[in-house]
Amino acid sequence: MKSIKVGLLGIGTVGSGTFNVLKRNQEEIARRAGRGIEITMVAARNTARATELTRGEVKVVNDGNLVVNDPEIDIVVELIGGYDTARDLVLKAIANGKHVVTANKALIATHGNEIFKAAQEKGVMVAFEAAVAGGIPIIKALREGLTANRIQWVAGIINGTTNFILSEMRDKGLDFDVVLKEAQRLGYAEADPTFDIEGVDAAHKLTIMASIAFGIPVQFDKAHVEGITKLQASDITYAEKLGYRIKLLGITRQTEKGIELRVHPTLIPASRLIANVEGAMNAVVVRGDAVGEALYYGKGAGSEPTASAVIADLVDITRLATADPEHHVPSLAFQLNAMADTPVLPMSEVVTSYYLRIRVADQAGVLADVTRILADSTISIDAMLQKEPGEGEQQTDIIMLTHQTQEKNIEAAIAKIEALSTVVGKVTKIRLEELS
Amino acid sequence: MKSIKVGLLGIGTVGSGTFNVLKRNQEEIARRAGRGIEITMVAARNTARATELTRGEVKVVNDGNLVVNDPEIDIVVELIGGYDTARDLVLKAIANGKHVVTANKALIATHGNEIFKAAQEKGVMVAFEAAVAGGIPIIKALREGLTANRIQWVAGIINGTTNFILSEMRDKGLDFDVVLKEAQRLGYAEADPTFDIEGVDAAHKLTIMASIAFGIPVQFDKAHVEGITKLQASDITYAEKLGYRIKLLGITRQTEKGIELRVHPTLIPASRLIANVEGAMNAVVVRGDAVGEALYYGKGAGSEPTASAVIADLVDITRLATADPEHHVPSLAFQLNAMADTPVLPMSEVVTSYYLRIRVADQAGVLADVTRILADSTISIDAMLQKEPGEGEQQTDIIMLTHQTQEKNIEAAIAKIEALSTVVGKVTKIRLEELS
Repeated sequence: MKSIKVGLLGIGTVGSGTFNVLKRNQEEIARRAGRGIEITMVAARNTARATELTRGEVKVVNDGNLVVNDPEIDIVVELIGGYDTARDLVLKAIANGKHVVTANKALIATHGNEIFKAAQEKGVMVAFEAAVAGGIPIIKALREGLTANRIQWVAGIINGTTNFILSEMRDKGLDFDVVLKEAQRLGYAEADPTFDIEGVDAAHKLTIMASIAFGIPVQFDKAHVEGITKLQASDITYAEKLGYRIKLLGITRQTEKGIELRVHPTLIPASRLIANVEGAMNAVVVRGDAVGEALYYGKGAGSEPTASAVIADLVDITRLATADPEHHVPSLAFQLNAMADTPVLPMSEVVTSYYLRIRVADQAGVLADVTRILADSTISIDAMLQKEPGEGEQQTDIIMLTHQTQEKNIEAAIAKIEALSTVVGKVTKIRLEELS
Repeated sequence: MKSIKVGLLGIGTVGSGTFNVLKRNQEEIARRAGRGIEITMVAARNTARATELTRGEVKVVNDGNLVVNDPEIDIVVELIGGYDTARDLVLKAIANGKHVVTANKALIATHGNEIFKAAQEKGVMVAFEAAVAGGIPIIKALREGLTANRIQWVAGIINGTTNFILSEMRDKGLDFDVVLKEAQRLGYAEADPTFDIEGVDAAHKLTIMASIAFGIPVQFDKAHVEGITKLQASDITYAEKLGYRIKLLGITRQTEKGIELRVHPTLIPASRLIANVEGAMNAVVVRGDAVGEALYYGKGAGSEPTASAVIADLVDITRLATADPEHHVPSLAFQLNAMADTPVLPMSEVVTSYYLRIRVADQAGVLADVTRILADSTISIDAMLQKEPGEGEQQTDIIMLTHQTQEKNIEAAIAKIEALSTVVGKVTKIRLEELS
């Protein structure tokens, strides 16, 4: 049978990984897919570099339009990243009746609805396993492996850069800025790390998982996004003493009122498997009503782990290209005509538990004032830690873990606590999830 | 669109879970599958009980032949277990052009080759996600999620009963027999626990995973199968002191000489995520050349977790029933005409590391004798632990961890060690895997 012909848009880290793995494992992949899969065309700005990476075996062009318009190409793989050009070329590829594979989380999280609609109208597949958690087949697990379940929540460590930084902060007791520099030196963080450390990358991925888990359109603009830049080494140490680890989690949960969609640093019990995911690794926990809790763990980034996901999509499409378009596996797990309009909850409506660090003057009555404010707001305290002030120090930290309450309720209580004359500066608030 | 009609063969724990989850989540499942999926017929020996479990909503018969021959039924779900009747009915269902879903690991591990061949000839699908690790979609991950990879090895905790027993032995320092009784009382072990505690159940599942990972026919008869009945609490304690946990692992690995296929108690470093999988939970680690290591964790048994897998297969078939038969996802991941004939290695050829516990008379020169024998066999020692004999005791334990060597080499060395006059009884040998 004729090979499937693939055209790449862009050939950076993931593109060259895809080329190399497809080449190295071509026999094994053909035995699985039922026919060969080969990259026959690559569009790249730096054509000399692209020719070098593909060892002169592939036609290299400098305009993506030549790939999406080529009648020989069966599947277009978009690895350009970013928004406008990627969107434009993906839509053109679909209009030309080509299946599309993309690793572009930003594109899917923001333009996914338009892209999936166009794909359905043309009867082609759009696959994006590589867009979330790299080599972990989490999209497939949610879209196909757990279809029996009403998904209750998904919580994931889905950004390797921040997990590497948090692991190092805990291991070495260092502050954020110091570790970020080390991460940049080692290549775990980019020169401009904003998307990673501010939680935007994780929120893109979470948006996609929420859509597949709950059958709602992608709506990145509704996500609550909070990064790790304000975390202090002392918070990690205090959390540890109370039996918790701090991770940057993406959490999406179906509640009676709507869907939570939030990325923020989170305390989780140290005994949970996901609390022990260290370094640049990713892990996602899914809770379904039938299956209970399931965890998926692996490399979330890197050339070949991401290529592993891109190629799995290529094999899926190759295996199933002959299914009639009405019976493709739906890109977003749910049939497009069966999406729900469940609203995304504003963060102020979310109910969770909290870690509070309160800097106070070391004098009698402070603790009574703080606990009275919490009691008046019907916020129960689950655990407390008060540090003895160091010699000669006039101030100390009070750490509290609260039971569940609504975000707007804790915010109101924090405002009152900060107004106390004995409280110094701002209260540090970090959310806490038992994940059980 | 017309609902997909499903007939159940057997309605025990998994069958009633499947009925209940399909019913409870029917709207969500239809939104994913593109049409309804309903159980319309059940064959059971106890028809009164079957009628009760299905609330009188389903046609109940006492002969499986009536289900597999019914022209209205699209998919037959085999939940009888065992070999002969299950095989007979599955083959009849296939001959009648019906798709088949089964949770029967024994059936697939022993008669899979015949069944998949028959299914391919008739152009129907045979799906068996529920046969391995219950609610963990590990079959799908291996068959579809990791298709880019040359799989190097798979190692899994794939029997909940034995993992529960080992967790309890470690937690409470109790011996095997005591914990087994507790497990039976709690329902974690069956009245006749032989298949679980002797490793047979794990070997059935491992056989299936090996086939999918490496593209070889199922060949349960070649598996090395060793259970946990001989494990002593002291081995668990010694392993702990050396930084290891003992788990019953199913391990399959592609080596240059052939494929390892083995189930046995195994020491693994306590820092590995899989070493921290406790109680009746299951976890599988897969190492692929592109993706690196990935771990999948969840409930491996129970009514609804297993139903979750059965229904995922039903949704897959429903979504893709219209793909032409040449383009179904192959049941064993590789196309049937592209299977490999790589041999399964006999256990004596396997290379791994070992934990040895040697009971010796407490007298000078014993250690020198033992280490000389190992050195003569070119077996290096990685770590050692010698217990001081208790007061008045004449004997003590020497614990050694070895570097990698071939199984037949360590066996020969052990025979020489056991022949020493200062060595008491048999040497305890447990295999050790770094899983890195």
